[in-house]
Amino acid sequence: MTSSDVLDTSLNIQLVQSGKILLGDIDQILKVLKKQAKKYKYTPCIGRSHGIHAEPITFGLKLASFYEEFKRNRKRLVDAIAEISTCAISGAVGTFANISPNVEKHVAKKLGLKVEPISTQVIPRDRHAFYFSILGIIAGSVERVAIEIRHLQRTEVYEVQEFFSKDQKGSSAMPHKKNPILSENLTGLARMVRSAVIPALENIALWHERDISHSSVERNIGPDANITLDFALARLGNILDKMIVYPKKMIENLNITKGLIFSQEVMLELTKSGLSREQSYKIVQNYAKKCFAEDLNLFDVISNDKFIMAKISSKKLKAIFNYSSHFKNVDLIFRRVFK
Amino acid sequence: MTSSDVLDTSLNIQLVQSGKILLGDIDQILKVLKKQAKKYKYTPCIGRSHGIHAEPITFGLKLASFYEEFKRNRKRLVDAIAEISTCAISGAVGTFANISPNVEKHVAKKLGLKVEPISTQVIPRDRHAFYFSILGIIAGSVERVAIEIRHLQRTEVYEVQEFFSKDQKGSSAMPHKKNPILSENLTGLARMVRSAVIPALENIALWHERDISHSSVERNIGPDANITLDFALARLGNILDKMIVYPKKMIENLNITKGLIFSQEVMLELTKSGLSREQSYKIVQNYAKKCFAEDLNLFDVISNDKFIMAKISSKKLKAIFNYSSHFKNVDLIFRRVFK
Amino acid sequence: MTSSDVLDTSLNIQLVQSGKILLGDIDQILKVLKKQAKKYKYTPCIGRSHGIHAEPITFGLKLASFYEEFKRNRKRLVDAIAEISTCAISGAVGTFANISPNVEKHVAKKLGLKVEPISTQVIPRDRHAFYFSILGIIAGSVERVAIEIRHLQRTEVYEVQEFFSKDQKGSSAMPHKKNPILSENLTGLARMVRSAVIPALENIALWHERDISHSSVERNIGPDANITLDFALARLGNILDKMIVYPKKMIENLNITKGLIFSQEVMLELTKSGLSREQSYKIVQNYAKKCFAEDLNLFDVISNDKFIMAKISSKKLKAIFNYSSHFKNVDLIFRRVFK
Amino acid sequence: MTSSDVLDTSLNIQLVQSGKILLGDIDQILKVLKKQAKKYKYTPCIGRSHGIHAEPITFGLKLASFYEEFKRNRKRLVDAIAEISTCAISGAVGTFANISPNVEKHVAKKLGLKVEPISTQVIPRDRHAFYFSILGIIAGSVERVAIEIRHLQRTEVYEVQEFFSKDQKGSSAMPHKKNPILSENLTGLARMVRSAVIPALENIALWHERDISHSSVERNIGPDANITLDFALARLGNILDKMIVYPKKMIENLNITKGLIFSQEVMLELTKSGLSREQSYKIVQNYAKKCFAEDLNLFDVISNDKFIMAKISSKKLKAIFNYSSHFKNVDLIFRRVFK
Repeated sequence: MTSSDVLDTSLNIQLVQSGKILLGDIDQILKVLKKQAKKYKYTPCIGRSHGIHAEPITFGLKLASFYEEFKRNRKRLVDAIAEISTCAISGAVGTFANISPNVEKHVAKKLGLKVEPISTQVIPRDRHAFYFSILGIIAGSVERVAIEIRHLQRTEVYEVQEFFSKDQKGSSAMPHKKNPILSENLTGLARMVRSAVIPALENIALWHERDISHSSVERNIGPDANITLDFALARLGNILDKMIVYPKKMIENLNITKGLIFSQEVMLELTKSGLSREQSYKIVQNYAKKCFAEDLNLFDVISNDKFIMAKISSKKLKAIFNYSSHFKNVDLIFRRVFK
Repeated sequence: MTSSDVLDTSLNIQLVQSGKILLGDIDQILKVLKKQAKKYKYTPCIGRSHGIHAEPITFGLKLASFYEEFKRNRKRLVDAIAEISTCAISGAVGTFANISPNVEKHVAKKLGLKVEPISTQVIPRDRHAFYFSILGIIAGSVERVAIEIRHLQRTEVYEVQEFFSKDQKGSSAMPHKKNPILSENLTGLARMVRSAVIPALENIALWHERDISHSSVERNIGPDANITLDFALARLGNILDKMIVYPKKMIENLNITKGLIFSQEVMLELTKSGLSREQSYKIVQNYAKKCFAEDLNLFDVISNDKFIMAKISSKKLKAIFNYSSHFKNVDLIFRRVFK
Repeated sequence: MTSSDVLDTSLNIQLVQSGKILLGDIDQILKVLKKQAKKYKYTPCIGRSHGIHAEPITFGLKLASFYEEFKRNRKRLVDAIAEISTCAISGAVGTFANISPNVEKHVAKKLGLKVEPISTQVIPRDRHAFYFSILGIIAGSVERVAIEIRHLQRTEVYEVQEFFSKDQKGSSAMPHKKNPILSENLTGLARMVRSAVIPALENIALWHERDISHSSVERNIGPDANITLDFALARLGNILDKMIVYPKKMIENLNITKGLIFSQEVMLELTKSGLSREQSYKIVQNYAKKCFAEDLNLFDVISNDKFIMAKISSKKLKAIFNYSSHFKNVDLIFRRVFK
Repeated sequence: MTSSDVLDTSLNIQLVQSGKILLGDIDQILKVLKKQAKKYKYTPCIGRSHGIHAEPITFGLKLASFYEEFKRNRKRLVDAIAEISTCAISGAVGTFANISPNVEKHVAKKLGLKVEPISTQVIPRDRHAFYFSILGIIAGSVERVAIEIRHLQRTEVYEVQEFFSKDQKGSSAMPHKKNPILSENLTGLARMVRSAVIPALENIALWHERDISHSSVERNIGPDANITLDFALARLGNILDKMIVYPKKMIENLNITKGLIFSQEVMLELTKSGLSREQSYKIVQNYAKKCFAEDLNLFDVISNDKFIMAKISSKKLKAIFNYSSHFKNVDLIFRRVFK
């Protein structure tokens, strides 16, 4: 048995163990997200695209979307662990010239690993590249949630806040500030985990039956990327578990645009009445501009337009300017995600 | 003269020309930023750290900060162009075995390039790596400005808006929406330009007196990174030139926190009266929490605290709750930047 | 149905189609590798670690190792295609507010896609990040094979050569040169495909229910990474199919070190005779140094050492200095790989 | 003075100090390279492009090329240190609202830093991105030299060898092996240093007057990239200083192709006699192929061709098949580099 045989299989064992810790972290996140998604299943808040208010959603839907993403990440990580769950004890260049393949088989079984079907002096590095690529993707998901919290904690938005203990100081200079520093921290850590991906990909093309250039890379990214992601996931689970949610502020924000967010449905209703999509769009956009410019409420303005009211009943209009119609499929979506 | 001599010097000529186009783009941005910074030199808006309101600044200061950053980028780009302004006509392995060094000297002079002091079959690729790294940094600055605009155009913030022609449709589905799509586009393009940096760095370590692995990289990133950045810079200049600024909304946002943003100065003033920083911090933080929780105005609350008012004069307190004291050094900063 | 619904599902359809083309490329590579591996199953060549001769392998083993790696890549690509085989027609923020979920279901079925369980305005970008990460890994494998060929075609090694048509010019300046330019080209292209991974990971963290920063990235890397990898895989298949192999040169190279490559086995045999590993190592290393310094043949030197020959029979020694004992498990490995 | 003022300026001080250590490392490398380049100024070896023998160079030229590259790196690093030699003490959002600009000026002078002309809560991160980009470029140069040594130590090439102490074990399994493990290690470390560049570029686009996402990145790459590069540069200097050079093997390798490397000059000489380049190329390529196929010496073959010998004098032919004519400009190049 060569030292490469021992060291290389050891590395895989360590990565498998690290991967399992990360799996545990993800399970914790899934548990918290499920709890919170159900809690806020019907808590209305504005859905935003391009940072601009679009249409109502519920806060639970945001969380359910994260849940589904981490479910995918869990599956990817399981696959990644399987990828590096191999054992190679095949000698200096992988020929079993001085050692029986049965040793490899025996050791693999003892260690709960699969036999590497064909190795050089080392286990091929595309396996490790896959593992670290998955860490990079998971880090991207961590960043997605962290960015969301940072946005929702902005002073002007303030729908969500990272937990802030009674005795905790905020900004050292500014006593009034409660900063989403944990989520900001995660944003930076996501950059770090991602930065391990390219070196891992560069490690694949070893010379001939191995060169050892991969080793210094793995001695760095092995512990660093795993530990950083472990820390980040644990922190994220904690943030999600303890976050303070302000449903009242969510409603206030929903109303900021004074009904403009229902403009699409007015438009769609108009098209049903026989107007072309272009005509309907034009009519509604004009009123939307007017409301925005003069700080008017879209419902009031439209109620006073006889042309429109001849096409849309008063009852229908009221239904349009109501969140709840937007939530009729929330339960369906939740069943898809949490069943 | 070998084909490598010709092709390699040609590449440098193309990069120099591209670099000069980018310089022109930056000059245009500098011109626009200078104009806008001066226009909004004393337009008050909130300064934010961690996305949370901190203390007042002026919108002109934001723009001046971008101006200074693009000044640095200009200088970096001039250096980068100088780095690749070299000519090598030195034969198959750089020894001038079959061509006189005078040819190189002559051609370099004709082309306005410097003689490459020592080349292999090609010009060393650390020069090109420097050039593309600078493109990556400039792209980072483009992203910084783009992110700022996207933030300022958020529905809840709405202090700035990308230009939106009268006849332009907004969202195809939602007639009321005006999305900062140009700045979002720049955010993505910054990712693309940045992605050229690592391949350019990987190109440095050519084998022996050259291998041609760098070539397929350069045939891609040469045009792509330069053209993408040219497009992005031109677009950014245009956005900054035509952006719609809402000073009134900036004032409204400044007042959202009802005076909390002046808490630091109240605290500092208290320390001058003999209280420790810790005591002062505690007092002010408590009031800040109270105001936030009960939607009160910090000025009113503090005016009614006899303990504090015994330490801070009423006149002083009024001065503290006033933006203008924050702007006393704006002119100094502008002189530093625009002199 | 919003334009986002249409565009986003369209992107996935395009990626699925691209992925399937890549699958076809990989299948072609697998076919060629299988053919060549079997052809050269017992063609002896030196196994190298650290670029230094280690122990004999067969050229077929090299190719079998690539085969197994591309088998893994095939499976990863199948998974990646499944990841982006989803359809979302869920409206402006994913709530199905103005469209029935049945439309989504119907369209998904028609298109052979799965329903996206929960979407925002768009399909979540961790899916696309996974897809592009897999392209990056496959590119790493392309590079691995390309680097191997470049090494084997080095003048001093010359065991393999890229196909070179009778009428083809070599170097334009140097008529005698046959350069592995196709494999060098692949090395650079691998850098390009890899460079798409980070932007794809950066695309995950979209703001709220979507921002459009991902779009300019995908309009670039969507076609570029797929087409580049398609080209690279097709070229690689072609190189492997037509490569010229020089078994005679492989044997010559095996003998360059005059038996030094069998030193490990001499050492191991000595330990069986009762010597400690340290003693054995020392003895053999001394002879190895002597042979290297004085250009002697290790077999001759050892044959003349009475101390050693008292421990190793002459017959055994001859067996040690023979490649074939190294190949006793080649068939086992081939069965593992090709069964 | 806020804690941001203190921490941010402290970071710059640390980076400046790190940068100066790296400068010292580079100076050491320059010293060693100069010494070695002069020592091997006229030591002939083969120049290779595409890994294929091209034309003769001297080993000193290789080293001089590295010297010039590290001179460029030195200048870049000096610029990078200047970039982050700034001090900002400007308060919570950079307005000097509660602190006089004179404090900044005073502290900057004391610390030997420049005043940051305009800061937000922090010093703008394009400066740091520049610094880390330069580290990435230097790492690329380290890799270039490391790859060269690894190539030159290949068993088939063996022109150069990393120092190997008398008592040092080689491979643990294979007593005869002397592996270029230090240079392989550097290849991996280069990947690590490079991996800091993208996070540093991603750090530029902080939100508004700062978010703290950059901090966790800098706490990692600050020490890691600097220390890794310091270690790598020190190791590289040591390798270059102590490397064992085999001029005899260089001559042997030069002769491997039996004169084929002079084919270009034969071709050029033929064109001077009135033949077209195409004709000359064809004639020489045919002979080159014949020599390669039948293991003949190009000089002999051409000497026997009456058609050629009617155009090239015997004296001229001898001059062509001689290294020294290739070295006539070595001194000129050395003067360019070392003057």
